[in-house]
Amino acid sequence: MTKRVHNFNPGPAVLPVEVLQQAQAEMLDYKNTGMSVMEISHRSKEFEAIVSEAQADLRDLMGIPANYKILFLQGGASLHFAMVPMNFRPAGVSADYVVTGTWSKKAFKESQKLGTAKAAANLEGENFNRLPTQSELKLDPKSAFLHFTSNETIHGVEYINEPVPPAGVPLICDASSDFISHPVDVSKYAMMYAGAQKNAGPAGVVIAIIRDELLEKVPANLPNLLDYKALAEENSLLNTPPCWSIYIVGLVLKWAKTIGGLEGIARRNQTKAGLVYKAIDESGGFYKGHAKSDRSMMNITFRLPNEQLEEQFAGESKKHDMIGLKGHRSVGGLRASLYNALPVEAVQVLVTFMKEFQQKNG
Amino acid sequence: MTKRVHNFNPGPAVLPVEVLQQAQAEMLDYKNTGMSVMEISHRSKEFEAIVSEAQADLRDLMGIPANYKILFLQGGASLHFAMVPMNFRPAGVSADYVVTGTWSKKAFKESQKLGTAKAAANLEGENFNRLPTQSELKLDPKSAFLHFTSNETIHGVEYINEPVPPAGVPLICDASSDFISHPVDVSKYAMMYAGAQKNAGPAGVVIAIIRDELLEKVPANLPNLLDYKALAEENSLLNTPPCWSIYIVGLVLKWAKTIGGLEGIARRNQTKAGLVYKAIDESGGFYKGHAKSDRSMMNITFRLPNEQLEEQFAGESKKHDMIGLKGHRSVGGLRASLYNALPVEAVQVLVTFMKEFQQKNG
Repeated sequence: MTKRVHNFNPGPAVLPVEVLQQAQAEMLDYKNTGMSVMEISHRSKEFEAIVSEAQADLRDLMGIPANYKILFLQGGASLHFAMVPMNFRPAGVSADYVVTGTWSKKAFKESQKLGTAKAAANLEGENFNRLPTQSELKLDPKSAFLHFTSNETIHGVEYINEPVPPAGVPLICDASSDFISHPVDVSKYAMMYAGAQKNAGPAGVVIAIIRDELLEKVPANLPNLLDYKALAEENSLLNTPPCWSIYIVGLVLKWAKTIGGLEGIARRNQTKAGLVYKAIDESGGFYKGHAKSDRSMMNITFRLPNEQLEEQFAGESKKHDMIGLKGHRSVGGLRASLYNALPVEAVQVLVTFMKEFQQKNG
Repeated sequence: MTKRVHNFNPGPAVLPVEVLQQAQAEMLDYKNTGMSVMEISHRSKEFEAIVSEAQADLRDLMGIPANYKILFLQGGASLHFAMVPMNFRPAGVSADYVVTGTWSKKAFKESQKLGTAKAAANLEGENFNRLPTQSELKLDPKSAFLHFTSNETIHGVEYINEPVPPAGVPLICDASSDFISHPVDVSKYAMMYAGAQKNAGPAGVVIAIIRDELLEKVPANLPNLLDYKALAEENSLLNTPPCWSIYIVGLVLKWAKTIGGLEGIARRNQTKAGLVYKAIDESGGFYKGHAKSDRSMMNITFRLPNEQLEEQFAGESKKHDMIGLKGHRSVGGLRASLYNALPVEAVQVLVTFMKEFQQKNG
């Protein structure tokens, strides 16, 4: 029997076992080519089919309108923190950022290196334990765009309804850690981008969904690989793309369709997160959730009465084959990441363990 | 039996079958973690070992001195065409480029977008069918660096002895398509970078080798993911790296050591290229090599008497399970790419086919 664990890693994260099995089976001979996916040309008809099927499946899954391009890029979301203002903020114009945690703060800082960026809200003073309301946002109607992060992986807060920009201001979202975890109205967005390594696949590929008219704003003479318009014109094949990562994303998207699409996935994610939040809420304060509101369905961050108990919890959970429950090194505590591919059974194991741990140590 | 072909693809390209088999065996459970390499944290001790072993193996294989950093980055060599001048050409200073084919021309053009770049030589007028001699180079002693491409994948010319820059001018090389194919004196280089997808692994990772003192020239306030110094300070883990691609590179490097290191590999590559060049040279002009001198050991480009015969050659070779022999769409003709992982037996099949094809059609 192959050993498999309950994988609560925050990303890179658990993948559907069916996807791994298919990748394993096809490793030496992809679809009777006599080659691995890693050995075929990115210009071959086989690889073109991988790209076009992944695009079609994602378009279908998310209901992406025809006037949006779907790109498979590199550099992680962090490179795109810089590329977004390079491409979509004209010289002398400011851009608005909603700062709700570590990741949106990084995006904001990268943007400030390259030009003017303003915080439409900054929740750092409240330790990023909630999201700002719409009325709290200080929005510039002349802003080049409004950028937000739909889910803060480290702090565990998540947007259910996206912020509303002023009329005519494009909405741009880093959706890395809740991408394809629930239905979303893409038509509200000018651009959405996501590192794949949470819900959509392995590290090494960023999925970007960009409205055609936004691409018209790209200035001339950017370096090719930093130019969304040039990348879109070549359908992500301006140079050799991260072929293997795109292939795995394609398999994950097909899997996502088989388990009920984004509505089925959202129900399953609500069930999973509900189990953990219930265990926290019914613990009489033994487990303390970090988020006061806007609690994430993806990353549940919580504390125990003291750090010694937190260490003990992380250590003992490993003995029960649960991996990745330690909080991010920058904030401490514990974190359960419950991405799409994590089975409900893994969450039941966690919740049972949480109750037993409290009984012994509470 | 698993079907495998003779893979002459120019990149992505053939990988050692032993590497694929190991990746296949470890797919669902990497080293008893109960997870795929794609599912483990990039901050885990298992992944840290993958990075540090790959660095140590490459340092050993190439004899990289201690004052060089080894980085695993993203974006393909094409992103680094822009990053090199962003990082290492101060404002107002020019950089020299040796233009010897499609790839060095692209690097030169990207550099020109961002500042002043001069062609130390440009062989386009001779259709890139040879390299410039050292005395032909017009070198600026105040140049920020001298950039060259060690092997031109599309035109099939390769440097055996690298160009010599003026004293104090750093030498920077795009070594994508002949990386780790033969011994090289790294101490002559300030920086060498290579997309992995020819000799070193799959697409999705760029290997960069940078002398410490060059990193001191990086200007302040570059975007993090475009800043070699910031990337080096975090040992390529500034953000989530392309974990799978790095893992496969690590396996390829271990394989390279088992087959005799770079000296053994170079001998094998000379044998393989020698067989094909002999078939060309002894064909009485039926096969015409593109390169007049500086013939590449990696990519052998040649023509037949007419395009109809070239089409026929490409088509019939496929029926003999030889893949990837068509020349690049921009230049036509035929091309045999003979990267490290291509077995000598595959080349013998090709050479036998070349002789038979000539007998029938010559």
